[in-house]
Amino acid sequence: MESMKGSIYRFGRGVVDGDGTMKDLLGGKGAGLAEMTLLSVPVPPGFTITIDVCRYFFEHESLPPTLDAEIDEALRWLESVAGKRFGDETDPLLVSVRSGAPISMPGMMDTILNVGLNDTNVHGLAARSGSEYFAFDSYRRLTQMFGSVVLDVPKTVFDKTLETIRKSERDLAGELSASSLCLAVEAFKFAIHEHTGDPFPQNPKQQLMMAVRAVFQSWSSERARYYRRLNKIPDSMGTAVTVQAMVFGNRGLDSGTGVGFTRNPSTGEKVIFAEFLPDAQGEDIVAGTRTPMSIVELANAMPVVYEELRCLTSKLEQHYRDVQDFEFTIENGELFLLQTRSAKRAALAAVQIAVDMVEEGLISKSEAIRRVNPVSIIEILSPQLDLSIGEPLLLAEGLSASPGAAVGKIALSADEAVLMAAKGEVVILVTEETTADDIHGMAASAGFLTARGGATSHAAVVARGMGKCCITGAKSIHMSARGDSIQIGDRTLTSGDWLSLDGGTGRVFAGRVQMRPASVSPPALDTLLLWAREQSICAVRANADSPDDASRSKAAGAVGIGLCRTEHMFFATDRLRHVRSMILATNEKDRIEALQVLLPMQQRDFEELFRTMSPLPVTIRLLDPPLHEFLPSIEEIGASIADARREEDWHQCLSLEDVRRRVQLLTEANPMMGHRGCRLSLTYPEILHMQVRAILQAAVTVAAEGLVTVPEIMVPLVASEEEMRELARMIHATAADVFAGQPEKVSYRVGTMIELPRAAVCAGAIAKHVSFISFGTNDLTQMTFGFSRDDARNYLDSYLQQGILKADPFITIDREGVGQLMAMAVESVRDVDPTIKIGVCGEHGGDPESIQFFHSLGVDYVSCSPARIPVAQLACALAGNSPEKKLELLSSAA
Amino acid sequence: MESMKGSIYRFGRGVVDGDGTMKDLLGGKGAGLAEMTLLSVPVPPGFTITIDVCRYFFEHESLPPTLDAEIDEALRWLESVAGKRFGDETDPLLVSVRSGAPISMPGMMDTILNVGLNDTNVHGLAARSGSEYFAFDSYRRLTQMFGSVVLDVPKTVFDKTLETIRKSERDLAGELSASSLCLAVEAFKFAIHEHTGDPFPQNPKQQLMMAVRAVFQSWSSERARYYRRLNKIPDSMGTAVTVQAMVFGNRGLDSGTGVGFTRNPSTGEKVIFAEFLPDAQGEDIVAGTRTPMSIVELANAMPVVYEELRCLTSKLEQHYRDVQDFEFTIENGELFLLQTRSAKRAALAAVQIAVDMVEEGLISKSEAIRRVNPVSIIEILSPQLDLSIGEPLLLAEGLSASPGAAVGKIALSADEAVLMAAKGEVVILVTEETTADDIHGMAASAGFLTARGGATSHAAVVARGMGKCCITGAKSIHMSARGDSIQIGDRTLTSGDWLSLDGGTGRVFAGRVQMRPASVSPPALDTLLLWAREQSICAVRANADSPDDASRSKAAGAVGIGLCRTEHMFFATDRLRHVRSMILATNEKDRIEALQVLLPMQQRDFEELFRTMSPLPVTIRLLDPPLHEFLPSIEEIGASIADARREEDWHQCLSLEDVRRRVQLLTEANPMMGHRGCRLSLTYPEILHMQVRAILQAAVTVAAEGLVTVPEIMVPLVASEEEMRELARMIHATAADVFAGQPEKVSYRVGTMIELPRAAVCAGAIAKHVSFISFGTNDLTQMTFGFSRDDARNYLDSYLQQGILKADPFITIDREGVGQLMAMAVESVRDVDPTIKIGVCGEHGGDPESIQFFHSLGVDYVSCSPARIPVAQLACALAGNSPEKKLELLSSAA
Repeated sequence: MESMKGSIYRFGRGVVDGDGTMKDLLGGKGAGLAEMTLLSVPVPPGFTITIDVCRYFFEHESLPPTLDAEIDEALRWLESVAGKRFGDETDPLLVSVRSGAPISMPGMMDTILNVGLNDTNVHGLAARSGSEYFAFDSYRRLTQMFGSVVLDVPKTVFDKTLETIRKSERDLAGELSASSLCLAVEAFKFAIHEHTGDPFPQNPKQQLMMAVRAVFQSWSSERARYYRRLNKIPDSMGTAVTVQAMVFGNRGLDSGTGVGFTRNPSTGEKVIFAEFLPDAQGEDIVAGTRTPMSIVELANAMPVVYEELRCLTSKLEQHYRDVQDFEFTIENGELFLLQTRSAKRAALAAVQIAVDMVEEGLISKSEAIRRVNPVSIIEILSPQLDLSIGEPLLLAEGLSASPGAAVGKIALSADEAVLMAAKGEVVILVTEETTADDIHGMAASAGFLTARGGATSHAAVVARGMGKCCITGAKSIHMSARGDSIQIGDRTLTSGDWLSLDGGTGRVFAGRVQMRPASVSPPALDTLLLWAREQSICAVRANADSPDDASRSKAAGAVGIGLCRTEHMFFATDRLRHVRSMILATNEKDRIEALQVLLPMQQRDFEELFRTMSPLPVTIRLLDPPLHEFLPSIEEIGASIADARREEDWHQCLSLEDVRRRVQLLTEANPMMGHRGCRLSLTYPEILHMQVRAILQAAVTVAAEGLVTVPEIMVPLVASEEEMRELARMIHATAADVFAGQPEKVSYRVGTMIELPRAAVCAGAIAKHVSFISFGTNDLTQMTFGFSRDDARNYLDSYLQQGILKADPFITIDREGVGQLMAMAVESVRDVDPTIKIGVCGEHGGDPESIQFFHSLGVDYVSCSPARIPVAQLACALAGNSPEKKLELLSSAA
Repeated sequence: MESMKGSIYRFGRGVVDGDGTMKDLLGGKGAGLAEMTLLSVPVPPGFTITIDVCRYFFEHESLPPTLDAEIDEALRWLESVAGKRFGDETDPLLVSVRSGAPISMPGMMDTILNVGLNDTNVHGLAARSGSEYFAFDSYRRLTQMFGSVVLDVPKTVFDKTLETIRKSERDLAGELSASSLCLAVEAFKFAIHEHTGDPFPQNPKQQLMMAVRAVFQSWSSERARYYRRLNKIPDSMGTAVTVQAMVFGNRGLDSGTGVGFTRNPSTGEKVIFAEFLPDAQGEDIVAGTRTPMSIVELANAMPVVYEELRCLTSKLEQHYRDVQDFEFTIENGELFLLQTRSAKRAALAAVQIAVDMVEEGLISKSEAIRRVNPVSIIEILSPQLDLSIGEPLLLAEGLSASPGAAVGKIALSADEAVLMAAKGEVVILVTEETTADDIHGMAASAGFLTARGGATSHAAVVARGMGKCCITGAKSIHMSARGDSIQIGDRTLTSGDWLSLDGGTGRVFAGRVQMRPASVSPPALDTLLLWAREQSICAVRANADSPDDASRSKAAGAVGIGLCRTEHMFFATDRLRHVRSMILATNEKDRIEALQVLLPMQQRDFEELFRTMSPLPVTIRLLDPPLHEFLPSIEEIGASIADARREEDWHQCLSLEDVRRRVQLLTEANPMMGHRGCRLSLTYPEILHMQVRAILQAAVTVAAEGLVTVPEIMVPLVASEEEMRELARMIHATAADVFAGQPEKVSYRVGTMIELPRAAVCAGAIAKHVSFISFGTNDLTQMTFGFSRDDARNYLDSYLQQGILKADPFITIDREGVGQLMAMAVESVRDVDPTIKIGVCGEHGGDPESIQFFHSLGVDYVSCSPARIPVAQLACALAGNSPEKKLELLSSAA
């Protein structure tokens, strides 16, 4: 028989006009069936009407005039290979009519089964199959689907009729009898006649043509159009229609149906994983009315069929070089595969499968990296709530600020958290929002819940740094005025009440929800991350402030510390009083004295960090937050004054009234844009001197131990070249002073953060005075948008809902605005000196989509919290993996 | 006699080698004397040694070998025209040796007078002049100046000697006698010999050569080098040396000396304005030991000389086309002009003179505009402290936030200010800083003094808007904890104490300082501003919120309102309670109800504005500040709760605890980057609907009265195209709704502010949805630098002192950073639509230097506070006046 082509592409029984590459013409389903046929996989034979016909249909509002004859020819071929005739009275060929677009749009378009049945041949089918029930149930399905899909009779008409019939039957629990089904068919046909003015078409060819037209038509249904708008699929794409011989798994015990995976989709283990129901149809598995058998039982019952299935699916996996999710039907001992596609899989399985397939020679390492979604790694490495047990009460929803889960008892202040943790309790810290001096309480807690703040609020940043679960901006939570209880709706909770947090979704549950522990990093993940690091152009560093974080990060393969926030060292309780003395000093002498006490402490911190990270570089940021963050609030001081209570001794030299005045002087209307960052260094140079001295003396000490160390001194919040010139001068002068008494110098680098719009605009000039820059994308995002990350929750949520923002810019970098400033900066910096090292150390450094963009800008490294390192490593490898994507990103940023 | 040229240029007695254009070779003084000679103005003859010689001198550390002969030749010429011989024993020619650089460096280099006197000819001079006193005083001056300047003998040596001689004379009050002067000369010569090892040179030629060398040498003195660094004058410029015959005004009653102006330098009146002392030298006028006579007395005493002086100076004024400041000497009835230069003049005089000179045909209108410093107009139009009377005690210094002066009694809160003003007191409001709800108190005060805040803090902006005096950031002022007194150093001031503010300099004085009232805008200024408006490409609009401000602005020639801040209408006491109800509403329905009450009030406001400004356009900004600005603070509510005090009824439906909770929810960590601007419109669309409705209904009403009105609706704080698209849609939909019931539509425009860095970066995309944009340079500066204008004082002062900032970026636009963002925005907006109207409505819109930059960007208008309109008009005309400047600015911004 000659090849058909034209508008129709056949498949099955060794005949095939298309292949798997022709998705754009045959749709995903048509192309897949063609490919399976080419692979000699038994599929029910059929033919696909091309997408070109769909386009013609919408252009001309009718099918092409030649299509009818082409379908006739295809039907003749189908009859010949099926050994049955379409419309035959005793053994009719039945067909399904399905849609299939190039991109899968699950459930969006229509399907009609059992086309070809009518009042006459339904009896033939009953006789031939030996089951009146089977024949009339098939006819019932046809009339019902055809009525609603093709003829637009409201679905409720059929549902109500069935309900009535069902009630009239005595045995309410069981299925309908054949005679009831026969009655249903009659009722459906009557309803169709009544609603459309025409009887249900008895001519099978007429049924087929109407069904084809209806399936094409469903491309422009409202729900399909909505789905496409949502997923940015062009309306002009169109769908193909596949007409396929029906096969039935419900023809007795030598029949059956099943679904399966070529490997375990939860663990990735390389064994076939499938379920099977004998004498049943696909719907029966989905409906769950009968319990499916394990695939082992199929092996026992039908060893030949089982072996065939195993071989076929293994062949498909080899062919597609990916785990397959397949459906099959056995009709009277004959195996058919109805569908095969790449299987969805759990994060852990994805990693295992990708690594196994590299070892099996099926895919390359780059391909393995592309197979794993970087974000899913977080799922592997953090504990999760097990929401399948019981029905936990959802109390509130907030922002998923740091993933994982936490179940524990409520503490309403940092101090309380410390006390409770000391008693061995697992603590959930619940506050309005956290500030820098809650750190001790946060360290003592398993998770944090705040009523305010966004994805980069203090609590969120600290949580991700600590790798703890955190939900922020749970706006329905209200703290009582006295701070001793919280109100959620009409529920009042107090300290010690149980609470469960699902950090991955931002949901807060009442009580103790069961928790699944985190997986230990599996060997396959270690392997994958090793490959990722080998393949990355862009390196991954860690944002780490403590030796603990540093060693965790080094173990995770970070190639250095990209951001050490020295202020975290200042908040330690044994130091805070000295920090406060330094701040409250009214003259330079007193300030220098207080700093002298802090110097050896900071130096020891740095020594430990350098030892831990040696020989890798450590970037240390000079003091950044406004000074009042280290002082008690006006309210607290006011309370102390009122109580005439004796305070700690850090202010003994000053009256409380003096302290109050000083705090008032330092308090700022907009601290984020206040007296902080390098502005501190330029107004109190002695702080810079102390910190630079501590860094370099530590480096000298560690170098004397024979360890290589590369301190990088990073200045925050620079706005202008003039600032950077002066700061670089101050740092080099201090360094010269430190080295003056030393036998050997240590090499160090000076750099700056680019975190103000002005710094981005003037980056070229600033770069003249540094050897590295690092984008502080949190602050850069704040200033560029004018969004305070602590306050933005109120409108950001609304913006996301309204679609004004596509993504939270504090999570995923805003390419159009912030990104354009970054691109400008990178270009001008590279112009000044192509060797300057460029990094990113904002929270975006751990976000895969952002990393892809940073990679496109050509940054040398990203730095992220320790918990995010694997995600970032994978994302970096991925970003370097698809060069075409890179070009596209570059042009969109330009 | 042949022309000299070479190194020496002669002038005087009809001979002249150079002219007024040769400043670069002859210095200002040499060129001026040449020019006067060319104009046949009698000057004492002399010659100028060129700047080339100075350069040679510094290169070779010696004078050119040919110079000696050239000077000899020039001296011979000078002797011939003076009729005296240099070094003659009976009638010696004496000369002065002075410096003269191309740019005036007053007092920075040295002068030596009476060169040519020695022990012998001093007696000849005495005999010839008939005055031993005159001769020995001249010699005394020579030995003293020569000793200190040429020979580096410490000045104190001479001073002490004189002191001793003076004491030894009986008559301590009078002048030294001739014999004492003779003694002084002997003592000076002795001192010189002792200090230098050489006797005082008796050879006149040797004196001259040493003097010339010393004057050249003074170019590189420390003070001269410092002055040049300060004024950015290159060291390589060099100075000329002018040698000039001495003339003496102290040769009896037919001699004398004087200084004068060709017009009155205080008022600009066109009459010669001069002082004259008979039988005196220039120094005597400066010293003030004798009271000079009015010029009228010269006219009586020496009518011919007077008439000659009048003619000569008038000729000079005509020639230089500017008011001249001249010095003259009459020696035995012969008039000499010693110097003429453009006169410094008071602001008022500058305006009057510029306008008069246009009317006299001396200068063009453009030139007249260039002759007046725009900022000086403020001086004309605001009252000033008269600091010449008494010695007021300087209490504190702050930032000159709004010029003018205010003298009144202290009020320590807005409410107190209102009460005191009601009693008829003139009030100075002194606060930590002001907020939007102090407006009523500010309206009642004559001036404001704040301890915090910068040049664009709330107080500053409001003050400039109201045209009132304001000093901000006076950091030495501390409010007491209870707010009932202020502390400045060890002084405590309370309500009712007198205080005087000098807004122009930022100085705060104790008590009641005398005040000079503001001038009424003089007709000449009106004329000048008219010309300025005619010549401007860039128009000037007003930032005006009230009909009062609007009519003031219209009268001042503003071509529209560029910024009407609707929130100021919300703070009016009769409205605040409704605004609060609106904010505290917990659902949309209640909120809309409260807005319904506000609608007619806002509508009436707009009607008045439109009527006042018709037919000019009025730009109305939608609500901008965060909502919590309209609510009492947490502290106030806490106090109310504690007192169980009955409050006003705006929250009667809510418990105080509910109000507290709501305020707490609305309170923001960084309100400047919080829930404000268009974010309010997008989260509470009903506020936008109300305001747009009020604007358009007002426009319809006013149009129905037959008045033309062009409302322009401006959306603040837009960050993205998506926001603007949605906001434009909302505004147009509301407009359609308003016009639906109307017989006629009113045309309106929709625009946005560009005040966030992201808006500047994405301006092209945003512009697709608007017909005008206006740069909000205050916020743009804040966000670009990350400088909170309320907090920046702490480090801005230090930055300015250290030279890290050249100017306060809140006063003068930062071209490099903010300016570059503006340039990007303008370019992309013009690309999208060249007809889009572009304006500036930040505080920089009233700053001449900033206006020059905005003009270079090609903006269509600037908008500023009513008091600044004349300044801006003049600055706009000036900016358009110098095309070469414009090009230079454009290239620096690129």
